[in-house]
Amino acid sequence: MIKKYTSGNPICTEAFIEKYDSLNISEFPLVNRVENNKFVFEFDMQDNDIVYGLGEAPRGINKRGWVYESFCSDDPFHTETKSSLYAAHNFLMLYGSKTFGLFVDFPARVRWDIGYTSTNKTVITIDGTDFDIYVIDGSKPIEIVKEFRSAIGKSYIPPFWAFGFQQSRWSYPDKQAVDKVIDGYNKANIPLDCVYLDIDYMERYKDFTVDEQKFPNFADYVKEKKEQGIHLIPIIDAGVKKEENYEVYEEGIENDYFCKNGDGSVFEGGVWPGIVGFPDFLRKDVREWFGSKYKILTDAGIDGFWNDMNEPAIFYSTKGLNAAIEKASSLKGKNLDLSQFFNLKDTFLGLSNSPADYSSIYHTVDGKQVCHDRVHNIYGANMTKAAGEYFEKEFGNGKILMFSRASYVGAHRSSGIWFGDNHSWWSHILLNLKMLPSANMCGFLYCGADLGGFNENATRDLVLRFLALGVFTPLMRNHSALGTRDQECYNFENSKDFKDILEVRYRLIPYLYDTFCKASENNDMIFRPLSFDYPDDKIARECETQLMLGDECMICPVYEQNVSGRYVYLPEDMTFVKLSGENVVTEKMTKGTHYIEVSLNEVPLFIKNGKQIPLCKPAMRTGLLDRENLEYIY
Amino acid sequence: MIKKYTSGNPICTEAFIEKYDSLNISEFPLVNRVENNKFVFEFDMQDNDIVYGLGEAPRGINKRGWVYESFCSDDPFHTETKSSLYAAHNFLMLYGSKTFGLFVDFPARVRWDIGYTSTNKTVITIDGTDFDIYVIDGSKPIEIVKEFRSAIGKSYIPPFWAFGFQQSRWSYPDKQAVDKVIDGYNKANIPLDCVYLDIDYMERYKDFTVDEQKFPNFADYVKEKKEQGIHLIPIIDAGVKKEENYEVYEEGIENDYFCKNGDGSVFEGGVWPGIVGFPDFLRKDVREWFGSKYKILTDAGIDGFWNDMNEPAIFYSTKGLNAAIEKASSLKGKNLDLSQFFNLKDTFLGLSNSPADYSSIYHTVDGKQVCHDRVHNIYGANMTKAAGEYFEKEFGNGKILMFSRASYVGAHRSSGIWFGDNHSWWSHILLNLKMLPSANMCGFLYCGADLGGFNENATRDLVLRFLALGVFTPLMRNHSALGTRDQECYNFENSKDFKDILEVRYRLIPYLYDTFCKASENNDMIFRPLSFDYPDDKIARECETQLMLGDECMICPVYEQNVSGRYVYLPEDMTFVKLSGENVVTEKMTKGTHYIEVSLNEVPLFIKNGKQIPLCKPAMRTGLLDRENLEYIY
Repeated sequence: MIKKYTSGNPICTEAFIEKYDSLNISEFPLVNRVENNKFVFEFDMQDNDIVYGLGEAPRGINKRGWVYESFCSDDPFHTETKSSLYAAHNFLMLYGSKTFGLFVDFPARVRWDIGYTSTNKTVITIDGTDFDIYVIDGSKPIEIVKEFRSAIGKSYIPPFWAFGFQQSRWSYPDKQAVDKVIDGYNKANIPLDCVYLDIDYMERYKDFTVDEQKFPNFADYVKEKKEQGIHLIPIIDAGVKKEENYEVYEEGIENDYFCKNGDGSVFEGGVWPGIVGFPDFLRKDVREWFGSKYKILTDAGIDGFWNDMNEPAIFYSTKGLNAAIEKASSLKGKNLDLSQFFNLKDTFLGLSNSPADYSSIYHTVDGKQVCHDRVHNIYGANMTKAAGEYFEKEFGNGKILMFSRASYVGAHRSSGIWFGDNHSWWSHILLNLKMLPSANMCGFLYCGADLGGFNENATRDLVLRFLALGVFTPLMRNHSALGTRDQECYNFENSKDFKDILEVRYRLIPYLYDTFCKASENNDMIFRPLSFDYPDDKIARECETQLMLGDECMICPVYEQNVSGRYVYLPEDMTFVKLSGENVVTEKMTKGTHYIEVSLNEVPLFIKNGKQIPLCKPAMRTGLLDRENLEYIY
Repeated sequence: MIKKYTSGNPICTEAFIEKYDSLNISEFPLVNRVENNKFVFEFDMQDNDIVYGLGEAPRGINKRGWVYESFCSDDPFHTETKSSLYAAHNFLMLYGSKTFGLFVDFPARVRWDIGYTSTNKTVITIDGTDFDIYVIDGSKPIEIVKEFRSAIGKSYIPPFWAFGFQQSRWSYPDKQAVDKVIDGYNKANIPLDCVYLDIDYMERYKDFTVDEQKFPNFADYVKEKKEQGIHLIPIIDAGVKKEENYEVYEEGIENDYFCKNGDGSVFEGGVWPGIVGFPDFLRKDVREWFGSKYKILTDAGIDGFWNDMNEPAIFYSTKGLNAAIEKASSLKGKNLDLSQFFNLKDTFLGLSNSPADYSSIYHTVDGKQVCHDRVHNIYGANMTKAAGEYFEKEFGNGKILMFSRASYVGAHRSSGIWFGDNHSWWSHILLNLKMLPSANMCGFLYCGADLGGFNENATRDLVLRFLALGVFTPLMRNHSALGTRDQECYNFENSKDFKDILEVRYRLIPYLYDTFCKASENNDMIFRPLSFDYPDDKIARECETQLMLGDECMICPVYEQNVSGRYVYLPEDMTFVKLSGENVVTEKMTKGTHYIEVSLNEVPLFIKNGKQIPLCKPAMRTGLLDRENLEYIY
């Protein structure tokens, strides 16, 4: 049962597709108040209650004991004490002494103090008084999730080949680099379906251009790769380069498509291309225009994209940078004291994604000027909608791979997400795992983290262990940053271990794809916390290093360095399976605590009694998989 | 058996107190070469070999699978991909197919590639050709450690009261703040022995001054606190403020005690006091001078210090800052492209601890000018030696509490260390645990991390779990940064839980102090990896979440949020003990894997069969402990 409470005049986010009658906020059942023009509400928790939700967010599956903020943030340091990542997924669920779900439909900041200030109290602060809150009643978490998911609409399903293994890097700047990657995988006999084009494929970072020097005859090249079974996936950034004779920019200026300053001039921010205009994706005409630009690349044979920098990330604004330089100049020849020094340093540090810049940007919503602060969290989702609406119209559903960095609930209908610029940290294996069920709750099924870690240098064993989790994530992509160690599987010693892991992925694809489609169809989760299935088992309730997958399995990656295995908790008798290349080793294990040994080239998995999962033969491309002849393990 | 190999003319670090005849480096038994004036040597590892060592360093007890650098660094982000922390502890030990120890006695950079580039190879690069390497033969890790420790001299023993609980914060700036802390602890009936004075107690951050406004009649105040059983522990920074009529600075100038630029002028860096001179602690006369200044505070009754910022940390140099401002000014009115923007931003970001600044500093060693780069890693250790030599002369051994942020082997004879500016991260509980045996190997017995975490906001449960590990660390100090949430125990809800944890500490102090003194006397470790005691037990060999403590116990803190316990591995039958306030619950447990429940107010501990440990009654101060009437648990 979903009830909708409305306060003031909310901006429509299109998160929900089902319509509910609005109840007046005065009837809202939780303790609440308005403070400084913010709506604050709260509920109590008992010691053993669990709080789920918030989708792509820092920390655990159980969100208790921290304060989070819904504010799409380009912040690559995903440490424990961060409050925001790239997404704003405003779904929360209390489970225990009371059980209910909440969705705060509000496109600006929302603060979630979940037992941080006071251990047994959740206090939610909405940064305004124009919003909808949906309250979802139910007795079981999975029922609440399904009801919520049903109301927000079915999740995006990507093409089948998007379940293949994907290799990315910032950057493979030209065709030689791309060919080298494909060649490396082919020679190592490691399966591969996609290679990514990060920003350098473009001409001076201009959206919807391809650098002719680097990729001569691009359409032919795309076709040639597709004949080899490889999809090229170019990046599209939110900002459009300010450059004379650049058609997209000039059209944007002509038609007044860009976000404004308060005085009506175009807001200018610095991102990869240098100065850009930010399309005002909140306008339908702008979305139609921007969406239609993807045609330039789909006409060249491209059938997959990733939308980036759409929080939006802003390295600096022209006005911010000028002010900083002005401040530095004024200090020339003076003896700075320490506070002046820190103030100056912080001025330069604070140029990126600055609150002052965000506050100075204006959108047009329903014909009215609206400050960016009020709609920040739906900017990226609307960029994705621009593409999604175009793809659906032009190609129908599920033909184009599309995922985004920034997102809001609703975007799950037309796109997946990746979890942004993580690090080559062992702790990020578990962070990846923990985000999976949370993202599923909010409708994002096609998702995954940068396997091996994006920032900083990875070690061989880290990449192998990360991939062994990635075997199960719908988006299975290895991605790494400029200046870091080469992270392609074939670049490490003894690439046979990587082949063993990736062949397991391809063997599982029929099962994973089927599980995915069913979850989308039934508004179900692919990944569930153990507590959903074993609510009365105390150890299972608290377990955040294992996940239930579909109806059949439990996954439990190894997530530490220099170990030959890990502890695992079985809430019931199960079959322990180790998969490696075409090898399958099974062992019946009993309910309880075990230490399992797992080699670097093995993928561990538990199958529930009475269940079985299908495996096909491995192949070098998803298109070569024989999906008819399946072997069943149990 | 220790052999010393000498190359060139090493700078004497005084790490060793035993003298060995030098063998020529040509006889050095490991594969080696000189490349670009660096000495590079290597050894192979088998899959199951373990590499121990490096003392205070990032990552695991087993150092395999990463590249480390000995370079004392003021870097507060102790993430997994860092290579250096504040110390340079050049002891390494291979254990497995071959077993030996190494100490690289060299005061500049040393790079340790321990299976990072190539999984089964360690490659060590010494940034020069003037060094000693000691090779320690032996068959058991503990024997190698003891032989090494014997050669470097007995570890510092602090006063007994330094085992009491210590509360710190940046900052308790005045006597009112200090009194509030003591009052808070007293009212909550939580034991306490020390309160720390961070930089704000000084007059404009000038070493060896006390701000009269904040602490009128300081000596009387120190005396009053001591009568309450509370020791005040002031900080001393490496840099001496440049200020007219400030005696310490003027003496330094008069006597030419400060580090120089290449042209012989005094090097000026910006730190907390603004512009400072850095005493050239490598000179004996400078150490004697600086050490004698501590008398100003010991005369006021102070009997404990912490030496900080002695890597040395340099926020900026006058010349670096001027160049950055100059660069910014030159860009005024110009349209910057992205690379110019990043270059400018990075210029300001790079002002702190800049390699260019370090390279421009000169010391006087044996009458010769020596570039700081060549002696960087012994600067802080020599600052501590300055204090230690004074204290020993004036008060004898073990009377003054002294610990340092930067260190080098050798400093362990006159001081402890703390592990620097960590974070309020759950992962830092384990990082703390993992550093303990590594630090012990290198002679540092009196050590500990900032409990609850220094940077960013802590949660109540994190502080409790952190403290439950800290119960066992010789230095048990809660410390937190300016601008973070109040972290004193009495400031959290239900302070009774904190009382329960801290009373356990006080009950254990007789045992912990005795274990400490024996370890110092016998050149032994207090904390050992399980692998030292159970070398043939595979799970124990790899375990890095539990430690052996003394001859009697195994410790196993809970290190995750929102859990009621943890997995534990018992390499043999043991007694599981839960301590909470005066409560003791024991349970016999069998060898193997278990899940143990531990409440937030409990300290878990395992006692080996046939062993027992003494407990005294809790008290509010160490001085009130009845060390004669002991209860034994087993």
